[in-house]
Amino acid sequence: MKYAIGIDLGGTNTKIGLVNSAGKIVARESFGTQGFRGQEPLLGEMAAVIRRLLDGSGIKSADFCGIGIGVPGIVDSENGIIYNLTNISGWRNVRVTEKLRKLLAARVFLDNDVNLMALGELHFGAARGAANVICVTLGTGVGGGIIIEKKLYRGSSLSAGEIGHVVIDPEGPECGCGNRGCLEAYVGNQRIVDRVVADIKRGQKTSIGKLAGGDLSQVTPEVISKAAAQKDRYAVSVWQDVGRYIGIVFAGLTNVLNPDRIVVGGGVAKAGPVLFGSIEKTVGELAFPVAAKKAKIVGAALGNDAGMIGAATVAMVGR
Amino acid sequence: MKYAIGIDLGGTNTKIGLVNSAGKIVARESFGTQGFRGQEPLLGEMAAVIRRLLDGSGIKSADFCGIGIGVPGIVDSENGIIYNLTNISGWRNVRVTEKLRKLLAARVFLDNDVNLMALGELHFGAARGAANVICVTLGTGVGGGIIIEKKLYRGSSLSAGEIGHVVIDPEGPECGCGNRGCLEAYVGNQRIVDRVVADIKRGQKTSIGKLAGGDLSQVTPEVISKAAAQKDRYAVSVWQDVGRYIGIVFAGLTNVLNPDRIVVGGGVAKAGPVLFGSIEKTVGELAFPVAAKKAKIVGAALGNDAGMIGAATVAMVGR
Repeated sequence: MKYAIGIDLGGTNTKIGLVNSAGKIVARESFGTQGFRGQEPLLGEMAAVIRRLLDGSGIKSADFCGIGIGVPGIVDSENGIIYNLTNISGWRNVRVTEKLRKLLAARVFLDNDVNLMALGELHFGAARGAANVICVTLGTGVGGGIIIEKKLYRGSSLSAGEIGHVVIDPEGPECGCGNRGCLEAYVGNQRIVDRVVADIKRGQKTSIGKLAGGDLSQVTPEVISKAAAQKDRYAVSVWQDVGRYIGIVFAGLTNVLNPDRIVVGGGVAKAGPVLFGSIEKTVGELAFPVAAKKAKIVGAALGNDAGMIGAATVAMVGR
Repeated sequence: MKYAIGIDLGGTNTKIGLVNSAGKIVARESFGTQGFRGQEPLLGEMAAVIRRLLDGSGIKSADFCGIGIGVPGIVDSENGIIYNLTNISGWRNVRVTEKLRKLLAARVFLDNDVNLMALGELHFGAARGAANVICVTLGTGVGGGIIIEKKLYRGSSLSAGEIGHVVIDPEGPECGCGNRGCLEAYVGNQRIVDRVVADIKRGQKTSIGKLAGGDLSQVTPEVISKAAAQKDRYAVSVWQDVGRYIGIVFAGLTNVLNPDRIVVGGGVAKAGPVLFGSIEKTVGELAFPVAAKKAKIVGAALGNDAGMIGAATVAMVGR
């Protein structure tokens, strides 16, 4: 059995796992990401945790492949540089692989978190056995990763996979990226919540308000999902609409990329059958039959561990 | 120097060229495709032409790579089967590579014409030196081919690249494919002409009618291009609109695939700078800056010979 360390550097928590070549996390630690003064102390803490995990594991150095780190931001995965992390201050233009390599004398790989999640799902999750995969995470933002012929596809300037910013309607709502009508501007967490709150304020009948304890500031995608699970008609229609938008983009990508698997992860994906049913229906309607039939749409399998497992995977299989 | 035969089986003409490994056609013949009673006589004519070209060339059999055939329709490129050709009757479920192999004792490769055009442009045309390429042909239909890491990308059921049927607006105009709002339903030749004729009938001021000899049935994309070249404001606006639709789809694909080259060919592409300017402007507006900057948008270079050269290329480089 081989082993690798996967680091999931998130805005809230940094999760570090020792992962074996069957994709199982055999040891793990996590700590709050905020509160470090700049990168060096945070990198030091990562190194300390990694040393502890490795020392405690008893694995032979010959069985250790290296370290992968996934981050929520723009990176140069080829040269191991983090350009910018939106939610973690003090991380501009950081040569993170070089720094960790010096601290730990190991091979270190960097990529953005959604690319690594796609790689993890390919080797150990919902995309196992597939060759060409579109991977999407639905959350505050909408991220994407593309697998082509069983390899992570990064594109000509390492920025491929930005599915959240495929434009559905150039006259549509403003998106955080500065554009209008991107997929993310329709199905990002906050957009869904904003729409629901506005509808309730306009008098929409639904149990969502009650499920949020009567406090509209407590409406979340989870609450909307709960209402939908209880057959609240309006909540169901919200997820159907969300699925429709996602399906429009997936249908186009299905026609162009003809994937055999589409993996949907992230918090919003927990809405379950009502959401997936709507996505599948839309892809079935809008994509070529031969391509739509081939593209199996599935939920992500690795859940909250996807970041760690994906990051460890790149250290095992290489870039 | 190596050589291959490229067959461009079109609805009107069948063009056959002997192509060398520098991408030059060193000998060629063509004949009308219609008027053969079924496949066998047409295949026989192809074989006779190919024998003539090879016999007249004096090339050594060791320097001959084989034969490629490109067709405008749905094929199984892996098994060499033409499923259906819309414009040539009697070609359903034809094992064309097997039949030609028996007639000519040579390696034979089959693919659809736009895939092969993309391959030809990659090796010998406007995509030379690029790694990740989106190739589009604008004509009666809108076809596409995708190059990933310098290889033709066919997808999980060999149907990748259907860029013409990416849906821009699910409530949009009906498309020939049965769907609504596909790119082709906005920018297919006939759609552009229909729109122009309708606008003229509604009193639109433009020189297009005069350039068509006063006969609206003679309006073609070429006539509209001519008017635009003479600064006819309405004709310019037509190409700007066409470029906008194409740009919307290219922007999405640029965000997802991060290509280094986008090649645009086919009759409509002859509209030139006014069309390309509008495509570039739209991609610049709607795609991520890093990806938009990387994606150089260029006209196809191989023109009417693209089909033959592309078909010969697949015989030279293999599937």
